[in-house]
Amino acid sequence: MEKSRSGRKIRSVQILGLAGLPEIRPGDDLAALIFNRCQASGFLLEPGDICIITHKVVSKAEGAILDLKTIHPSPFAVDLSRRLGKDPRLLEVILRESRRIVRMDRDIMICETKHGLICANAGVDQSNIPGGNRVSVLPADPDRSAHRLVGRLRRLFKFHIPVIITDTFGRPWREGLTNVAIGVAGFDPLVDYRGEKDPCGYVLRKTIIAIADEMASAAELVMGKTQRIPVAILRGYPYRRAKMGSRALLRSPERDLFR
Amino acid sequence: MEKSRSGRKIRSVQILGLAGLPEIRPGDDLAALIFNRCQASGFLLEPGDICIITHKVVSKAEGAILDLKTIHPSPFAVDLSRRLGKDPRLLEVILRESRRIVRMDRDIMICETKHGLICANAGVDQSNIPGGNRVSVLPADPDRSAHRLVGRLRRLFKFHIPVIITDTFGRPWREGLTNVAIGVAGFDPLVDYRGEKDPCGYVLRKTIIAIADEMASAAELVMGKTQRIPVAILRGYPYRRAKMGSRALLRSPERDLFR
Repeated sequence: MEKSRSGRKIRSVQILGLAGLPEIRPGDDLAALIFNRCQASGFLLEPGDICIITHKVVSKAEGAILDLKTIHPSPFAVDLSRRLGKDPRLLEVILRESRRIVRMDRDIMICETKHGLICANAGVDQSNIPGGNRVSVLPADPDRSAHRLVGRLRRLFKFHIPVIITDTFGRPWREGLTNVAIGVAGFDPLVDYRGEKDPCGYVLRKTIIAIADEMASAAELVMGKTQRIPVAILRGYPYRRAKMGSRALLRSPERDLFR
Repeated sequence: MEKSRSGRKIRSVQILGLAGLPEIRPGDDLAALIFNRCQASGFLLEPGDICIITHKVVSKAEGAILDLKTIHPSPFAVDLSRRLGKDPRLLEVILRESRRIVRMDRDIMICETKHGLICANAGVDQSNIPGGNRVSVLPADPDRSAHRLVGRLRRLFKFHIPVIITDTFGRPWREGLTNVAIGVAGFDPLVDYRGEKDPCGYVLRKTIIAIADEMASAAELVMGKTQRIPVAILRGYPYRRAKMGSRALLRSPERDLFR
């Protein structure tokens, strides 16, 4: 909250990008690197802050980077590569990361990952990885990664800091990608208004907001794609602590009209 | 930008909620009400700020509120109402606002609106409207509404303030709603990274970010659904001025794998 001159409270949320982290390597202690970077730059985290981290650095720290030279594509991947005009080894990695192909058309593959996420190329990505010919895959269990980071951040900063791990997904019907939460720990990723009355007395019946996805999107505003800002701090949002992770954001097949 | 103690620049975006607007009535000058509220509360807008407005107050100002008592449902709406357990007059309004029904299952109707937006109930909504038995529909042309607001805000504040008009939509595959941009004026709603190199030298080939949707989501963090904060100011994002509106965010049927 910030007070205006007249004393009226203005609700305010701030998103701060943390630049200057080193290139992340397998086995790195990401929480310690964040802590050290904050200490070195005088960037003071506060109780109430939420730490939002692009999955790319989590994948790097967890060693979820594959060298395409080590991948032997299956006959299906080789066949696909001819039709899609993509590297068969890349397609092989995408297939291994998928439990279902949702759409395959032109050069686009929309996959359901082993986590139940639905996104292009099963989250396999070639950007922001040094060395060439290497690809990142999503963390094996992003909620567990987030949970571990919350524990480690607490030990370093001495207070509770929820964590969101993000990726950038396309959507049906709309152009452009947006950042979404693929891993969550330390707070409730949904805000359930059902049963609450709006200021006019109408009882909201269906309104549940995917607040963690909105926070992931907000963080992208300071992260960008080419600026080396893999971590953002969201300050000022009165989150609710909870134990469920990002799985609460995945719609079950029975409830989904768009399978 | 905010400087940390060591002098290193921290990229920062702030979202400020503007509370205290009166209940909006048909014909109200929304820009003037925003200006007056800012003046009265000492909330100083700055060049570079973006004004994000929930469509509900735009619909109210434009008179896009219907009294269900004046609606005569068609036989199809009456028939639907028996199966969906909804008010036939509400269904009639939803049908009139739609140009296509995308899915109809259980009590859910996903519609393509006359604007080309795909959302539940064609954007027809009963919440936050005083008087009972009344519903709001989306503004007839949200980009034109946003464009008018940009012009009016410029005359009042004496500088350029881009406008985003938002609504809260569900998505396939994921639980929870997020705020999206249904009207845009005064800046480019997409950031196109195609052809740019990431810090590792990889050329991004497909990355276009729906920045206006991310900003709409960020604004929801301070707006909420029951707090009477229909306007948020986003500060600190280096937007690019452009003339295209929110139509740039709508995927054409030919490019959409999920029609």
